[in-house]
Amino acid sequence: MTSASSESPDITPSVRPTTSGPLLPSIKSPDDVKKLTDEQRVELAGEVRETLINCLSVTGGHLGPNLGVVELSIALHTVFSTPTDKFVFDVAHQGYVHKMLTGRADKIDTIRTYKGLNGFLLRSESEHDAYGAGHAGTCLSAALGMAAARDLTGGDSHVVAVAGDAAFTCGPTLEALNNIAETTKKFIVVLNDNEWSIDKNVGAIARYFNALQTHSTYSSVRTSAADFVEKLLGKAARKIAHKVEEGAKNLIFPNVLFEKFGLRYFGPIDGHNLPLLVKTFEHLKTLNEPVVLHIITEKGRGYQPALDNPGKFHGLGAYKIEDGSTDTVSSPTCSDIFGRTVTNLAIDDPGIVAITAAMPGGTKLDTFKRELPDRYYDVGIAEEHAALFAAGMATEGVRPFLAIYSTFMQRAYDMIIHDIALQNLPVRLCMDRGGLSGDDGPTHHGLFDIGYLRHVPNIIHMQPANEAEFVAMLNWMAKYDDGPTAIRYPRGVITGVSVDEKVSPIILGKGELVQEGNDVALIGLGSFFEMAVRTKELLEAKGYSVALVNPRFIKPLDTELLERVARNCKVICTFEDHVLMHGFGAACIEHLHDAGIPTPVERIGWPDEFIEHGKPDTLQALHHLTPEAALDKILSRLKTDN
Amino acid sequence: MTSASSESPDITPSVRPTTSGPLLPSIKSPDDVKKLTDEQRVELAGEVRETLINCLSVTGGHLGPNLGVVELSIALHTVFSTPTDKFVFDVAHQGYVHKMLTGRADKIDTIRTYKGLNGFLLRSESEHDAYGAGHAGTCLSAALGMAAARDLTGGDSHVVAVAGDAAFTCGPTLEALNNIAETTKKFIVVLNDNEWSIDKNVGAIARYFNALQTHSTYSSVRTSAADFVEKLLGKAARKIAHKVEEGAKNLIFPNVLFEKFGLRYFGPIDGHNLPLLVKTFEHLKTLNEPVVLHIITEKGRGYQPALDNPGKFHGLGAYKIEDGSTDTVSSPTCSDIFGRTVTNLAIDDPGIVAITAAMPGGTKLDTFKRELPDRYYDVGIAEEHAALFAAGMATEGVRPFLAIYSTFMQRAYDMIIHDIALQNLPVRLCMDRGGLSGDDGPTHHGLFDIGYLRHVPNIIHMQPANEAEFVAMLNWMAKYDDGPTAIRYPRGVITGVSVDEKVSPIILGKGELVQEGNDVALIGLGSFFEMAVRTKELLEAKGYSVALVNPRFIKPLDTELLERVARNCKVICTFEDHVLMHGFGAACIEHLHDAGIPTPVERIGWPDEFIEHGKPDTLQALHHLTPEAALDKILSRLKTDN
Repeated sequence: MTSASSESPDITPSVRPTTSGPLLPSIKSPDDVKKLTDEQRVELAGEVRETLINCLSVTGGHLGPNLGVVELSIALHTVFSTPTDKFVFDVAHQGYVHKMLTGRADKIDTIRTYKGLNGFLLRSESEHDAYGAGHAGTCLSAALGMAAARDLTGGDSHVVAVAGDAAFTCGPTLEALNNIAETTKKFIVVLNDNEWSIDKNVGAIARYFNALQTHSTYSSVRTSAADFVEKLLGKAARKIAHKVEEGAKNLIFPNVLFEKFGLRYFGPIDGHNLPLLVKTFEHLKTLNEPVVLHIITEKGRGYQPALDNPGKFHGLGAYKIEDGSTDTVSSPTCSDIFGRTVTNLAIDDPGIVAITAAMPGGTKLDTFKRELPDRYYDVGIAEEHAALFAAGMATEGVRPFLAIYSTFMQRAYDMIIHDIALQNLPVRLCMDRGGLSGDDGPTHHGLFDIGYLRHVPNIIHMQPANEAEFVAMLNWMAKYDDGPTAIRYPRGVITGVSVDEKVSPIILGKGELVQEGNDVALIGLGSFFEMAVRTKELLEAKGYSVALVNPRFIKPLDTELLERVARNCKVICTFEDHVLMHGFGAACIEHLHDAGIPTPVERIGWPDEFIEHGKPDTLQALHHLTPEAALDKILSRLKTDN
Repeated sequence: MTSASSESPDITPSVRPTTSGPLLPSIKSPDDVKKLTDEQRVELAGEVRETLINCLSVTGGHLGPNLGVVELSIALHTVFSTPTDKFVFDVAHQGYVHKMLTGRADKIDTIRTYKGLNGFLLRSESEHDAYGAGHAGTCLSAALGMAAARDLTGGDSHVVAVAGDAAFTCGPTLEALNNIAETTKKFIVVLNDNEWSIDKNVGAIARYFNALQTHSTYSSVRTSAADFVEKLLGKAARKIAHKVEEGAKNLIFPNVLFEKFGLRYFGPIDGHNLPLLVKTFEHLKTLNEPVVLHIITEKGRGYQPALDNPGKFHGLGAYKIEDGSTDTVSSPTCSDIFGRTVTNLAIDDPGIVAITAAMPGGTKLDTFKRELPDRYYDVGIAEEHAALFAAGMATEGVRPFLAIYSTFMQRAYDMIIHDIALQNLPVRLCMDRGGLSGDDGPTHHGLFDIGYLRHVPNIIHMQPANEAEFVAMLNWMAKYDDGPTAIRYPRGVITGVSVDEKVSPIILGKGELVQEGNDVALIGLGSFFEMAVRTKELLEAKGYSVALVNPRFIKPLDTELLERVARNCKVICTFEDHVLMHGFGAACIEHLHDAGIPTPVERIGWPDEFIEHGKPDTLQALHHLTPEAALDKILSRLKTDN
């Protein structure tokens, strides 16, 4: 759903780009925003933009979305009072400006760096962050819960849910819409419409919003609404930006879709017109009915490279301020390889299709889209539908590659069990960001997928140890029609080897014994195979004989190979980019126990807690996921047992 | 979402109620339906109804929904040709009539019994069952996948998705709606509108459908549509049932909501008028655009007790044909106790609220609804929204009990991780049907929730061994505000003890050592504690000293108690109503391994496969989940080790 596409340095720059301009440094809390004049707030918007463009050029981050909500965020903090009033931002990647207005402007240059500000909202970061997010489509429901709680306890605070147009392709948002009118009378939804999710929006709802923007006449403008336009705006209506000029006449009118859901609709208005936003919110907060305000914004507003390339600037790593250029990475990422390989497979096999949930760029299925548009399906931020759609296709003999990040696959969990696995349909679950997702933090780490998949009957699950093996596995999956398969692969590069490197054939449920040995057996799963290799070197330097295994398959486990190395060695150590609980190492322990083989298993993996954001190296060191830590564990076990 | 509310016998009745009437026995395939005259098809409908009412009085099942779709099912099989054409029934509890028309009429008296027909659709049961289900809201997406596959491969089959009005409160359905128009031009949705899901529908969409039914004028009837009405129906329009009479004038008109989604809308029409249904489908199959046909049906049509009490007759056990009465169960079920206890807790604590996803009857929150309507929330079949709504409420200090069956909680999985656990919010996840769900079968068994929850940080998870402990645990949860808690409890009765029975205090992470012993330690989780007790008796009869543990907490595990019995005994045996993989016993093995305690752990639980439908006793015996099987395993382990 969202994530910056490349890594950025994890160190706070030694010369910190200062906040720009005279006003921003004085904004220590939302009260300071309220004290400004209208003109000063417009100035403040400029300073915020400049600061964002400067700071994010170093740290990377969600530049485009935040440039789009500068005026909105300032207007919200002008009219409402957090933490008493609550703002719930959908996905919350557009929360940087809100952070800057709530006492965190001087830390914005630390965003997405270890111990710096998180790239999304976290309740633990500030009392002004009413609700955290990272996945899309949650804000209406969560905000409605807050409003219901307020109504129950007799409070009078305001709850404002800010959602992009893409959130309206998402099941939970639509479920929430169905419940708003009968739950509360005091609820404000801001539809922040920029016609983009991460990539261009899809589906009927996107077309509908677009029609709202461009429709120039509407027959049944309510008198009251029309009166309000005149009273409130006067000549301001003339000033609205180019994009909504055409819609000026129907600036406020009853919108059928929202009104069917019982929300009074206002808009569309120019989301960069600060005085208009402030006046509108002042009015909306007096109403005693749930409302939606439709604003039109530009993703990347104020920075030409971001306007020119909104997809790239949705989220990215460091860039040159002058032209927005970014360093090209030398090795292809797993996503690159995935996009290329699945496209190649589909060129050879007309039965293969590719499905993404609004992530053609992130998953790199944009390659497939370009070359095989007829067999490419982007269903919007709708992972449940995506999985069901794949299942439906699979019943008819079509072979879908369903590309969804490990953490977002959680959305389709019931469908994986109830539709795909139970019916044993050959859907290929391709889980990018399987493992730590680094600077995106806990909402984006893909550390649970072995946990949630291994106990589901019928699913084959695997993870490649390098790029060439990744391609071999995708080739193998394309031919495996006996049931569902899943593959997890990390963000970025694994080892960087050429995809043309020779690999031994992929055989169902068979791992690879890379090296024989009889003191210690190291089993390195997927992207952590390299950590096993480095541990092997440390052990060999101390004179131990080390067996090295690339297990390839999480399920079915290569029990024969596991038993063999367990019988030959005194200690096993497993390595996995996953939580230890319900992880790969736990599966090894379980099997060896049942087989009556007492060889102890040390495990390297993530602890039973949510892992913060930061560079993988930093976090691995912090949590003792290193060859050195493995060595210590192994040596201590060898000493105990001998 | 659906399930019969009580158990029924698992044995095919010795005197089988025969299919009624002269026509039904001759229906061996859909071809035989096509050969009938219009009048004969109306007769057939009567025979199908009579057979359903008779057979289900013995087996139990989803009587009301099936009585509502008799004409629809006959019309579909008259106009379309399965298996070439595809019908996808949402939830598929209304598939009995379809089964009877596709060669299974003589087996309808075996429905929901072991080795008999499944109560839902299963692809493995018949080639006419294009898609299986059991959970709601999947049919539009899956059918759209089939249509897309057909379009890709150049086929010309028809795909018909049949969904109840309740499915439209459900995220995946709405996600699918957003994708239909740009995916295919040949797609038929039947909106089977009976104003009921399981309980009365909620939300804006329900109000909207209701308005469609009762609205008597509509200004912009399309000429073409009006022509079609006249041509097609003539006087038939006069004959439509009482319920839609008012809507006759707008029988076919462009419906705003569906048309916004790009579907051409037809209806509402009388869903019990067979000739009208047949003619309408004949027309719809000629169109080259996605369409929705809105039909009005009566749940329970043709059987007065079911019409009088549609909630009860949605799904139930055996009943007396004369008056629809059912045996009252002597012991309260877990659901009864849950409803009563949470209501009592909320009476004492104004901060407690209860949330259900369209299951006030199934979860027995109807008690709460009756007594505390202001703090009761039924959000529709919208588990994702329900979990988010609960999370939002919890941020404001309100304490939600979220009651969702174990298998349906899978729908909210991402929200449990990303919203509830990550933010450590004190939401109480109350998972009814935690364990085998018996005659409902694999779509309803709750055998995965330890698997999907244990590796999620911050969640406390427990299971009571009897009714009194269940109440004590709910009381404990009500006071635990430090983070999320989850409780799993079975369908029906646990041991049947009085809730007033004294239990030792619930202490976080502490199990109960019920009996000391030093040969074998038996650890019986929750509803399987009784199996441990019976195993203990078998072992004691053979002279062994047996320790007996009621672990209470799945997470955090009482590791101190586990280590203690493991050190004292030669063998441990765990019992759980859950799959073994990623189950409770696996957690014990993992911990003992890490603690370096070599005591072997035998495990009783479900294998790594989907479990069919049938009585729990039958299925437990089949899969060796019995005291006798446990005894064998333990004795064999004791012999090996000594």
